[in-house]
Amino acid sequence: MLPVPQISAFNPPRRILMGPGPSDVYPDVLAAQARPTIGHLDPLFVNMMDELKQLIQYAFQTKNEMTLAVSAPGSAGMETCFVNLVEPGEKVIVCRNGVFGERMRQNVERVGGVAVVVDNEWGEPVCPQKVAQALTDNPDAKFLAFVHAETSTGALSDAKALCALAQSHDCLTIVDAVTSLGGVELRVDDWGIDAIYSGSQKCLSCVPGLSPVSFSDKAVEKLKNRQTPVQSWFLDQTLVMGYWGNANGGKRSYHHTAPVNALYALHESLRLLANEGLENAWARHKNMHLLLREGLTKLGLTFVVDEASRLPQLNAVYIPQGADDAAIRSQLLQQYNLEIGAGLGALAGKAWRIGLMGFGARRENVALCLKALEDVLS
Amino acid sequence: MLPVPQISAFNPPRRILMGPGPSDVYPDVLAAQARPTIGHLDPLFVNMMDELKQLIQYAFQTKNEMTLAVSAPGSAGMETCFVNLVEPGEKVIVCRNGVFGERMRQNVERVGGVAVVVDNEWGEPVCPQKVAQALTDNPDAKFLAFVHAETSTGALSDAKALCALAQSHDCLTIVDAVTSLGGVELRVDDWGIDAIYSGSQKCLSCVPGLSPVSFSDKAVEKLKNRQTPVQSWFLDQTLVMGYWGNANGGKRSYHHTAPVNALYALHESLRLLANEGLENAWARHKNMHLLLREGLTKLGLTFVVDEASRLPQLNAVYIPQGADDAAIRSQLLQQYNLEIGAGLGALAGKAWRIGLMGFGARRENVALCLKALEDVLS
Repeated sequence: MLPVPQISAFNPPRRILMGPGPSDVYPDVLAAQARPTIGHLDPLFVNMMDELKQLIQYAFQTKNEMTLAVSAPGSAGMETCFVNLVEPGEKVIVCRNGVFGERMRQNVERVGGVAVVVDNEWGEPVCPQKVAQALTDNPDAKFLAFVHAETSTGALSDAKALCALAQSHDCLTIVDAVTSLGGVELRVDDWGIDAIYSGSQKCLSCVPGLSPVSFSDKAVEKLKNRQTPVQSWFLDQTLVMGYWGNANGGKRSYHHTAPVNALYALHESLRLLANEGLENAWARHKNMHLLLREGLTKLGLTFVVDEASRLPQLNAVYIPQGADDAAIRSQLLQQYNLEIGAGLGALAGKAWRIGLMGFGARRENVALCLKALEDVLS
Repeated sequence: MLPVPQISAFNPPRRILMGPGPSDVYPDVLAAQARPTIGHLDPLFVNMMDELKQLIQYAFQTKNEMTLAVSAPGSAGMETCFVNLVEPGEKVIVCRNGVFGERMRQNVERVGGVAVVVDNEWGEPVCPQKVAQALTDNPDAKFLAFVHAETSTGALSDAKALCALAQSHDCLTIVDAVTSLGGVELRVDDWGIDAIYSGSQKCLSCVPGLSPVSFSDKAVEKLKNRQTPVQSWFLDQTLVMGYWGNANGGKRSYHHTAPVNALYALHESLRLLANEGLENAWARHKNMHLLLREGLTKLGLTFVVDEASRLPQLNAVYIPQGADDAAIRSQLLQQYNLEIGAGLGALAGKAWRIGLMGFGARRENVALCLKALEDVLS
């Protein structure tokens, strides 16, 4: 036998999470998650899942039947959309203005699709004119894929306008709403989004590890008419829906063991969102952002993203000249228990990302962040 | 705006989980999971992951560097093994003696491999003679894949013998240890297993949703020498290992947001296992099984699996003639808060599956189960 590792229980400190996610989790969500595990086919659990579906529908503002939580993080939600909808050889127009657009491109290639990339600079929103041109130049494109709220830069793109363009060219839309859901306006049905995924750990302030996903009837039709099998067994939604209850006349069939306790947490976080009301949550994120912006500006910090397309929940600011990126983030963490995010990709070492997400979008967090930054930058 | 769903907080009852999993979760694991969420790149979290890796290595009895927890359930762990190791056109000998062997076959096909199926009846272990014949008949086979402990039937296969056969034919082994890990003897390095996956929700008595996985150096070599890219972005271990710390000289790079709180839970469950000691845990499962067997036999119930290959932690018994399968399971659940498992696949409606897994393998659970069954069957 190998030696027994001598390891103590892990007791994490209480951090204040103001990075790009995970965000501060609601205390009620942590408590919900710790409730007793029950079976994934228990009638009470199945009923909880029905409620969860309604709550996800509300958060996405959709009546889509195929609405559920993928049992894995947001990047698996992304893969769920591409692997189920895009068949080998099909053309996808992919908008890239940060890390996650590039990840979409990689997903297209891994499923055997053909990616046509529309590039914008990091920090810019996706340009609808460029997209219109790409759609015109590629009449055989089947999909338009873009990130609603780029977590790597804090740029918000005009999802409504982009979806309208896609529809006028008869393309299905695949939309990344990982950072947007619950934080800014998002209307899946009104805007005609066909496939959307998000993450539990951003503006929902749930624990990380789940990805709410929704497919429109048109997307479901596309999935049903595939000529080739879905290459992933785990993410194959025709199988998963046997468990989430939209196949076999509502009878649940086993696919994989659901992450029971994590789903309790998601149920509670979405319930809190519904109780607050989506529009109130959007307004709260906006108001807290304005407070933070005022303070950051006073500190002389400047934003990466222009005001018109700046996300309230993800504030990317340039690191001031002479400031030591890693040392300052470490100081905030060690001395204030405050986490802010490093720059990612093209912004690594150049920007910080300050999140105001979900439960984190509170006045006390804004105050702490501003005072701590003032201290460590002075 | 859509109407706000009116949904109450979910308060599950305290069930006693004696089905095929999820199993009863250790109270300390539920408590660990509810600790404050910290960032997935926080130095304290990274250190916790290093400990977690050691704990998984101990549970698997391996020194494999590539040892980690996939951020998704066991079926994603299965897919992780096939999608990373098997390239299009490669031949895999797949042993099928229940649901999960068949799922392996489907995985082989979805990654473009060629499955050669070795069948055994449901309830039988995998037959080494048949496997030896298949290896001889298929000298071009690159892999042998089998399920160590078939959750659908309760049959234990001789993993040591099967691995020795594979090695003598220069095949890599892919082993399903979802139900075996922590419940019966399993020695990854001694037996020469090349790729193995398990689940958090069986004999580890952790919450469902994670899959411990380990690759031998030979498996890593195979992965590194692939001619084709891994078709899944989310499960691509060459990318995931950038985060788990075995690439870039130990520097962590972001791949996806780890399921932070679920990993706290896994850390605690594996710590409890290490504190008990693996061999003690194996003995406890065996002893509780013997107690249960004695009682079930007195009740006139008979086992699906022969004694020689019967799993202690998963007891499949035939439903007595005249007993109403669904009504009895429902009665146990409603009146005793006791969950036992239905039959799956070929055993649906014919057998029950009684789990004695991890924290569930206790004398009080055995007693309750026997008395409740006696009551409802009389």
